[in-house]
Amino acid sequence: MRLLFLGDIVGKPGVQACVAMVPGLRDELQTDLVIVNAENSADGSGLTVKQFQKLAANGIDAFTMGDHIYRKREIIPVLEKDSRIVKPANYPATAPGKTFALVETASGIQVAIVSLMGRVYMRPVDCPFAAVDRVLAEIPENVKVRFVDLHAEATSDKQLLGRYLDGRVSAALGTHTHVPTADARILPGGTAFMCDVGMSGAYESIIGREIDPVMQTTLTFTPTFFHVASKDVRLCGAVIDIDPETGKATSIERFERSWSENA
Amino acid sequence: MRLLFLGDIVGKPGVQACVAMVPGLRDELQTDLVIVNAENSADGSGLTVKQFQKLAANGIDAFTMGDHIYRKREIIPVLEKDSRIVKPANYPATAPGKTFALVETASGIQVAIVSLMGRVYMRPVDCPFAAVDRVLAEIPENVKVRFVDLHAEATSDKQLLGRYLDGRVSAALGTHTHVPTADARILPGGTAFMCDVGMSGAYESIIGREIDPVMQTTLTFTPTFFHVASKDVRLCGAVIDIDPETGKATSIERFERSWSENA
Amino acid sequence: MRLLFLGDIVGKPGVQACVAMVPGLRDELQTDLVIVNAENSADGSGLTVKQFQKLAANGIDAFTMGDHIYRKREIIPVLEKDSRIVKPANYPATAPGKTFALVETASGIQVAIVSLMGRVYMRPVDCPFAAVDRVLAEIPENVKVRFVDLHAEATSDKQLLGRYLDGRVSAALGTHTHVPTADARILPGGTAFMCDVGMSGAYESIIGREIDPVMQTTLTFTPTFFHVASKDVRLCGAVIDIDPETGKATSIERFERSWSENA
Amino acid sequence: MRLLFLGDIVGKPGVQACVAMVPGLRDELQTDLVIVNAENSADGSGLTVKQFQKLAANGIDAFTMGDHIYRKREIIPVLEKDSRIVKPANYPATAPGKTFALVETASGIQVAIVSLMGRVYMRPVDCPFAAVDRVLAEIPENVKVRFVDLHAEATSDKQLLGRYLDGRVSAALGTHTHVPTADARILPGGTAFMCDVGMSGAYESIIGREIDPVMQTTLTFTPTFFHVASKDVRLCGAVIDIDPETGKATSIERFERSWSENA
Ligand SMILES: [Fe+2]
Ligand SMILES: [Fe+2]
Ligand SMILES: [Fe+2]
Ligand SMILES: [Fe+2]
Ligand SMILES: [Fe+2]
Ligand SMILES: [Fe+2]
Ligand SMILES: [Fe+2]
Ligand SMILES: [Fe+2]
Repeated sequence: MRLLFLGDIVGKPGVQACVAMVPGLRDELQTDLVIVNAENSADGSGLTVKQFQKLAANGIDAFTMGDHIYRKREIIPVLEKDSRIVKPANYPATAPGKTFALVETASGIQVAIVSLMGRVYMRPVDCPFAAVDRVLAEIPENVKVRFVDLHAEATSDKQLLGRYLDGRVSAALGTHTHVPTADARILPGGTAFMCDVGMSGAYESIIGREIDPVMQTTLTFTPTFFHVASKDVRLCGAVIDIDPETGKATSIERFERSWSENA
Repeated sequence: MRLLFLGDIVGKPGVQACVAMVPGLRDELQTDLVIVNAENSADGSGLTVKQFQKLAANGIDAFTMGDHIYRKREIIPVLEKDSRIVKPANYPATAPGKTFALVETASGIQVAIVSLMGRVYMRPVDCPFAAVDRVLAEIPENVKVRFVDLHAEATSDKQLLGRYLDGRVSAALGTHTHVPTADARILPGGTAFMCDVGMSGAYESIIGREIDPVMQTTLTFTPTFFHVASKDVRLCGAVIDIDPETGKATSIERFERSWSENA
Repeated sequence: MRLLFLGDIVGKPGVQACVAMVPGLRDELQTDLVIVNAENSADGSGLTVKQFQKLAANGIDAFTMGDHIYRKREIIPVLEKDSRIVKPANYPATAPGKTFALVETASGIQVAIVSLMGRVYMRPVDCPFAAVDRVLAEIPENVKVRFVDLHAEATSDKQLLGRYLDGRVSAALGTHTHVPTADARILPGGTAFMCDVGMSGAYESIIGREIDPVMQTTLTFTPTFFHVASKDVRLCGAVIDIDPETGKATSIERFERSWSENA
Repeated sequence: MRLLFLGDIVGKPGVQACVAMVPGLRDELQTDLVIVNAENSADGSGLTVKQFQKLAANGIDAFTMGDHIYRKREIIPVLEKDSRIVKPANYPATAPGKTFALVETASGIQVAIVSLMGRVYMRPVDCPFAAVDRVLAEIPENVKVRFVDLHAEATSDKQLLGRYLDGRVSAALGTHTHVPTADARILPGGTAFMCDVGMSGAYESIIGREIDPVMQTTLTFTPTFFHVASKDVRLCGAVIDIDPETGKATSIERFERSWSENA
């Protein structure tokens, strides 16, 4: 089976590009499933219910989030009820949301999706290694295809999680830095891995935001609002082929597509 | 002119691969100049005088460092006297070393090299924006080719520095995360940029160190020594073409080469 | 001469307690000058123009700020024009505000006030050691009484700054943690020092904010607004005696007073 | 019953002062139990077996540690076997050591001791709130006197933990910053609290280390060894009276004593 994962959707441009491009990409790439990280959809922080619905109606099968997960509180009931969206598995038990998502491809293959937050240079969270052990044990054993979003800052943190999960999940792909890394590979145990798939948003920007206000605040220390940028919109992610019998990845390729290319 | 930049040399494997491969790469790639970031050469932290000499004798023209710069104190006299190696320009005035290096290609083109430390998630340092303004003003005006190593953790920090320097330097290339990014480009003003060129060392590792001890310490919190890894050694960096008249970059290409490929 | 310094004013309760108590305290303690850190006055972050004027009209002679300095942008013109309020001296040159304040006691003693931000566990700023060297050189030599607010998180950072300034300023007193330390002393060179004078606000709180919302967000990771608390309001700070001829401190005593005690 | 708690023992001077003074202090203060935080005993980092034995032989009944707990690996077997010393309860299950210590006073009162690491500005650890819930449930119900060492950096972190534990433990006292705070109090539910009890070591220092090397490294960025300081040695901590029937604290007083005073 083939899975397309798209990294952090940033703002309206990112949402619009997904809505415009994903249906066509499903056909073109022959994907069985499309997963997105949607944590920056709502003007850069969070995800609205409307955005969730629009994306779900346009070819997105499952959603991961990240440190901005609760920024739009309206998404909390969705996180609690909908089985297509997950909270970070190493968030506290009291934090709203499910620890794994479970979706099915058109051909009937079940896929579990887990989100993990890194700890280095991040807001304090519980051990992702212990958390993922717990969650993997909760997922029904017959669900062989298992996807993990590693939402983390430090490359060491992501590489350690990738190695820890090698052979236990189909793919462990990084998000959060908004810049794609050139290290896509299948680890020795059969897990597709890369440090970061990059963001889905405007690349003429500072990680998705307008350059000028971020620069001005950085130089002068006077706060402004960091509006989402809109030029050079691209979808970034990875295409992974997985053997549905074993859950092992057989190939991973970095994915990047300009919106204009599809226009 | 063509310039090859190699990212963080990690340990003996990284040094040996450079020594073995750089002389041949100079011919193959037709480079006029080879610059390396050598901050992790000495068993993962710092650079010894012997390593400096060996690398300089084998085709390395200039050296940048990073947060591990003074880990081997023996390098301090070299930093103070040798014009081929720089300290981070936003380190304090009292910190040993030069704020820019100045080397010349065989064909007589002068090249200035500057190192900047990022500030986000890094040890506290002075403003790199103000520092680079100062240093660029110190470099003789007739030196048109100017190379900057952005030694930083956060992608936002690196992108901001790249944008700030766009049109003012030939290239501003990131180091420190030890993972190459897939974002090499020429910015609108003519500056070659990428967030990280990756490390030169063993890729079967956690950012250059043996996987097992790092994993054990991460899981159990009991300290061990993080030995440098030795499998799957590669040189990573970028090849940049620069117009020596204007100092503008005309192309940038990510560079990655396995040691075995040359064997 | 005698100087009263009050730590971080937190919200309306802190402002009101100052307004109600400072005029009486000036008489009772026989202070020649009252300085406050006002960075948390405006509902916990920043200072409004109205609050500045009200405090100035009720016995406050000079103001320091901290990391929240520009949270209320309306204060920027005041920072640029008024000589009674300072920005952190190690903020960038382009950041609005003066690097030292200069006020005069009723008896004609001139007093310079400087603010420094620490760097450990704080937002990146320039070296406070280099900055304070610059600013102390700018202050007219005949101004012997020099007060420094050390706005920093780590005790090591504050102790280092205190030692660095020992013998060069009359007092170097910490703020920012909102909890008073029990280490008030005169350093060997004659500089009054303590790591933190504590906040001026509600002590039945988490550093000035209502306990429940902070606890809920900490436990569940779902964001709420952290309203300023209102119970057990106290002014905290230090009373310092200074020889106006030499600028040396002759005594320092921690100050703490409940609002109710004055009611 | 009366309990004396002494904060972070720093180096040989701290150990020697404890050995010299604690036996006499037990009589003078009529304490039933003496607990120390010993994480900095071994030249500033860790605790040797010899030091553990020497302190235990001279009136110390129980030991907490902190982030430096495993710096001397020789202490690991002691941590695993001896019931008088604890690891932080929110360290991973795989980290060596017990989650609570259990000791008995001469008069037969059982006392449980727990250590918690804070998370703000600290190395990543698991949630201390969830951890302390688990550990408090493990302690035999008849053990009413329960002491918690809050080893944390940020005042907000410590105050939150104190409030969370209020009414559930006899005392929750802070360590780690090495500077005593002036906020000792009994919280509404009967728990003795203060943000930091201070260190037991040399106060003519930067948090227990020689001033000059720390200053030089801070100013010049060139590394040196931070030797433990030796002048102005004091024991700092708190004296707490606890009702052994209810486990509630009835009084807390900050404790500070110069070594010379006893000489
Ligand atoms: Fe993101
Ligand atoms: Fe994120
Ligand atoms: Fe490095
Ligand atoms: Fe580095
Ligand atoms: Fe404050
Ligand atoms: Fe502050
Ligand atoms: Fe300590
Ligand atoms: Fe500590």
